[in-house]
Amino acid sequence: MTIDHGANMNHLEQLKDAVPADIVVTDPDLMEGYRRDSADLVPAGKPVAVLRPRCTAHVSAIMSWATRTNTIVVPRGAGTGLSGGATALDGCVVVSMEHMTAIRDFDVANHTVVVEAGVVNADVGRAVASAGLFYPPDPGSFEVSTIGGNLATNAGGMRCVKYGVTRNSVLGLEVVLADGRVLHTGGQTVKNVAGLDLTQLFIGSEGALGIITSATLRLRPTPAATATFVATFPTLETGGRALNAIFASGVTPSMLELMDNATINAVEDYRRMDLDREAALLLIGQADGTDALAQVERMATCCDEAGADLSVATADPTESDMFLQARRLAGWATMEQFPTVVEDVGVPRTRLAELLTTIAEISRDTGVRIATVGHAGDGNLHPMLLLPDLGEDARRRAMETADRICAAAIALGGTITGEHGVGELKREWLTHQLDDISLDVQARIKRALDPALLLNPGRGF
Amino acid sequence: MTIDHGANMNHLEQLKDAVPADIVVTDPDLMEGYRRDSADLVPAGKPVAVLRPRCTAHVSAIMSWATRTNTIVVPRGAGTGLSGGATALDGCVVVSMEHMTAIRDFDVANHTVVVEAGVVNADVGRAVASAGLFYPPDPGSFEVSTIGGNLATNAGGMRCVKYGVTRNSVLGLEVVLADGRVLHTGGQTVKNVAGLDLTQLFIGSEGALGIITSATLRLRPTPAATATFVATFPTLETGGRALNAIFASGVTPSMLELMDNATINAVEDYRRMDLDREAALLLIGQADGTDALAQVERMATCCDEAGADLSVATADPTESDMFLQARRLAGWATMEQFPTVVEDVGVPRTRLAELLTTIAEISRDTGVRIATVGHAGDGNLHPMLLLPDLGEDARRRAMETADRICAAAIALGGTITGEHGVGELKREWLTHQLDDISLDVQARIKRALDPALLLNPGRGF
Repeated sequence: MTIDHGANMNHLEQLKDAVPADIVVTDPDLMEGYRRDSADLVPAGKPVAVLRPRCTAHVSAIMSWATRTNTIVVPRGAGTGLSGGATALDGCVVVSMEHMTAIRDFDVANHTVVVEAGVVNADVGRAVASAGLFYPPDPGSFEVSTIGGNLATNAGGMRCVKYGVTRNSVLGLEVVLADGRVLHTGGQTVKNVAGLDLTQLFIGSEGALGIITSATLRLRPTPAATATFVATFPTLETGGRALNAIFASGVTPSMLELMDNATINAVEDYRRMDLDREAALLLIGQADGTDALAQVERMATCCDEAGADLSVATADPTESDMFLQARRLAGWATMEQFPTVVEDVGVPRTRLAELLTTIAEISRDTGVRIATVGHAGDGNLHPMLLLPDLGEDARRRAMETADRICAAAIALGGTITGEHGVGELKREWLTHQLDDISLDVQARIKRALDPALLLNPGRGF
Repeated sequence: MTIDHGANMNHLEQLKDAVPADIVVTDPDLMEGYRRDSADLVPAGKPVAVLRPRCTAHVSAIMSWATRTNTIVVPRGAGTGLSGGATALDGCVVVSMEHMTAIRDFDVANHTVVVEAGVVNADVGRAVASAGLFYPPDPGSFEVSTIGGNLATNAGGMRCVKYGVTRNSVLGLEVVLADGRVLHTGGQTVKNVAGLDLTQLFIGSEGALGIITSATLRLRPTPAATATFVATFPTLETGGRALNAIFASGVTPSMLELMDNATINAVEDYRRMDLDREAALLLIGQADGTDALAQVERMATCCDEAGADLSVATADPTESDMFLQARRLAGWATMEQFPTVVEDVGVPRTRLAELLTTIAEISRDTGVRIATVGHAGDGNLHPMLLLPDLGEDARRRAMETADRICAAAIALGGTITGEHGVGELKREWLTHQLDDISLDVQARIKRALDPALLLNPGRGF
C-alpha cells in the first residue's frame, strides 16, 4: 500500500479551530514517547502531531478534519502492543486515547459497565470488584493496557480458557468512523441479532476501520473459590500427554499455562523461586467455583499419570498466588535480562508438544535463544526470542527465527497470532496464513468503511 | 430496495451446463414446498427454480452463474426461520442446502467437528455424544433446523445462558461469495486474531453476504451431572424479584427459562402435566457440573425468598426431563391450537418483569391473546401471538401488537430480535432500533461483498 498523504502545518492550524488547542501536541520531545509501541523490531515513523482527545466529540472532529485534509491517523492505547499496530507512520497524527478514562455507567444488576477507551483494564476490575463482579479478559499487560487497545487487538490472557477472549465480553461499542460520524453498535442485551454484528467486526480490527471510543462490557460474578495446581515434567512429551489427558478429562480449567525449561531458568535467574531448573516443562492451572479443588486435583492426577516429576494442588490463596507469580514474572524476567521479541503463535491444543519440539529445533538451528511460555489451554504459545542486542545481525536472525516459528504453526494447522494482532510486524506472515480471497474480502471491507485509507493504513490485515 | 433482476428460462439452461441437471428443480408442485419458511405473515414470492447442491463446487457454480445472469439467490436451510429470511422472492432461485449433510471431520481430542451446512443441529449432537462431547447451541428447532440456518441467524437456545449463542461455538467457516469464489475464514485454533474476524461477520448475516457451506464447530465436554429446579409465582413481580436474586447470587445456570400464565394454560390444555393454572409465572432452571444440585438448590432458595408459591429442586434425570418437557411443549402447544406469530424481543435481564407487564397491557389493548415463554437468563422473551385465524383483520391486529411489543423492548433498552433474526418481517422495526449511521455501515459492507445485491436482498439489515 502506497501512503502518499500526510498532515502539514497549515492543516494543523485548521485542526486547532475544530478542537481545543491543548489536545494538539507538536513538541518533538513529547511526541517522541508516542512513536513506538512495544514491538522493538518495527521501525517508527515521525508524526506531525499527537492528539489527546478528552471526549468522543473531539475524536469525531479529528476524523472529520483528517478526512478533509487526507491525513493519516494512527490510534493508540497504552502502547503495550507487540506487533507494531500503534507505531507511528511518517506524516501521521497519533490519536492517543489516554485522556478518555471515564466509566460512564455501571449497571450492577445487569453485570454491565460502560467504559471509555482509555480506561486501564485493571481499573475496570477494581471498579467492579466490590459489587462481586469481575471483567474476565486479562492480557499480560492488564495493569497498564487500556480497554481500547484490548478491543483493537481482541486481546486474550490467562482466563480466556474458561471465559473467552475480549470479544466474548463486549455487548456494544461507540466508534468514530473515518469520516467523523459516531457509530453505535450492539446494545445492553446479552443476546441481540438486530442486523450485522458490527461490534464483532470492529473488535480485532486494529484501528483500521474506526476509532473505538467507548464499550459496554459484560462482567461475570466473582467465583466462590479458586484452586491451583503446579506440575513439572522431565520431557516435553510427558507434558504434552498430561495436557491431552486434561483436555479429555472434562474438567473446565479457569487457567492452564505452561513454561519451558528456558523460561523456568530465566525466572530463577531473575528471582529465586525454587523452581526445578531441570524440568523440561512446567504446567500451572486453576479452576474456580465451589468444586475448584476437586477439579485441580483431577488435573494434577492427569499430570501424575502422564509422568510428572512432581505435582501439587492447593486451595490456599497465598500458595496459589506464589505459583502464579512465577508465571506472571516470565515476561518481565526475560525482558529485563535481554532485548526480547515476543512471538504469539497458536495451534490446535493437542499439537502443543509438537510445536514446542519444533521451536527447540529452530532455536538450535538459528542460534537464537528461545524461552517459551503460553496459554496451554488455548493452544497459544509465546516463544520469547532472547537477543544478545538489537544490532543488525541479531535483528536479522530474530526475523528468520520468527519466520520459521510462524511457518511451523501454520504447518500444524495453526495461526501466526493468537492474541497480539497482526500490526505491522506480521503483515507478511499473514499472507502465508490467509489466501488472496480472504485478503481481498478484508480489503473490500476496509475500503467500504475507510475509502481514503486514512485509518492505520497497512496494519492489521 | 428495488429488485429488478430475476432468472429466465434461457438462464436456467445455462445453469444446467454448469451443474448436474438433477440439482435444478423447476416442477411447480415440488417448488411450492420451498417458497416459505415458518414466518406465516411474510408473503412468499415465486422462484423460477429450486437448486439443491450436493457440494461446495455446486454452490460456487451457482453463484458464478447468478452473478453472470444477475439472478437473485435466496439461501435456505430447513425453513424453520420465524422472520421470513428464507422466504422466496419473485424470480429468484432458492438454494436449499438440504443435501450438503456430510460431517467432514471430527477431531475428538481437539473438541472440533467440521460439518456441512445442511447437517441438522441434533445430528451434530448425536455424532459427538459417544465421545463425551456436545454442541451447546440448541434452538427450539434443533431436531429439525440445520447448522447453516443456525449460523445465518446466529441462533440461540436454552443453553446459551451458560455456553453462549451460535457465534460462540464456531472456529471457522467455508463460504461461497456472491461472485462464486470460495472463502475460508478462521481456522482450527481456539484463539486467532489473524486479520479481520470474517467468521463473526458472516454469522448472523442471514444469507446476505455469502452462502455458508461448511463450519468448524467447537464442542464442549458433556457435564458430569445436571440438576433442575421449577418454581411458580403468584405475580410477575415476585417472579421478577426471584430472577434478579438469581442473577445476583453468583450461580451459573446452564438454563433459566420462564413461562407465563397463558403459556402454562396452553400447555395444560394440550397435555395434562399438573402445572399450576393459577400461577402468574413459572421458572425452570438447570445447572451442570459436579456441584449442579447445590447450584439449583440455591436458585430455588432465591425463588422461595422472593415469594414463590412452590419450588422443587432435583438431580433425578427423569424428573428433570418431565419439568423440561413442559417448557419444550410450549411452542407446539400454542402452534397446534392457534395460528401463532412468535415474537423474539430482548431486554437487559433485570427489565424482564417490566416487559412482561407491558406485554400483558398490550394484549388487553389490542385484544390479541399473548402467551409468553422466554430465555429469562438472557433477557430474551418470545411473546406468542395466538390468532383466531389468518384473515386480514387478524393479521393487521397481529402486526399492530408486534409493533407495540418491539417498541416496548426498545424503550426498555432492548432489541427487536434476540435470536430469530431480522429476515423480512422485522426490517421496518430494525429502523426503529438502529440509526441511519448503523444502517449505512451495514449497507456499505453489503455492497462491498455483493455489489449487485443478489444475495437475499432486502433481508437481514
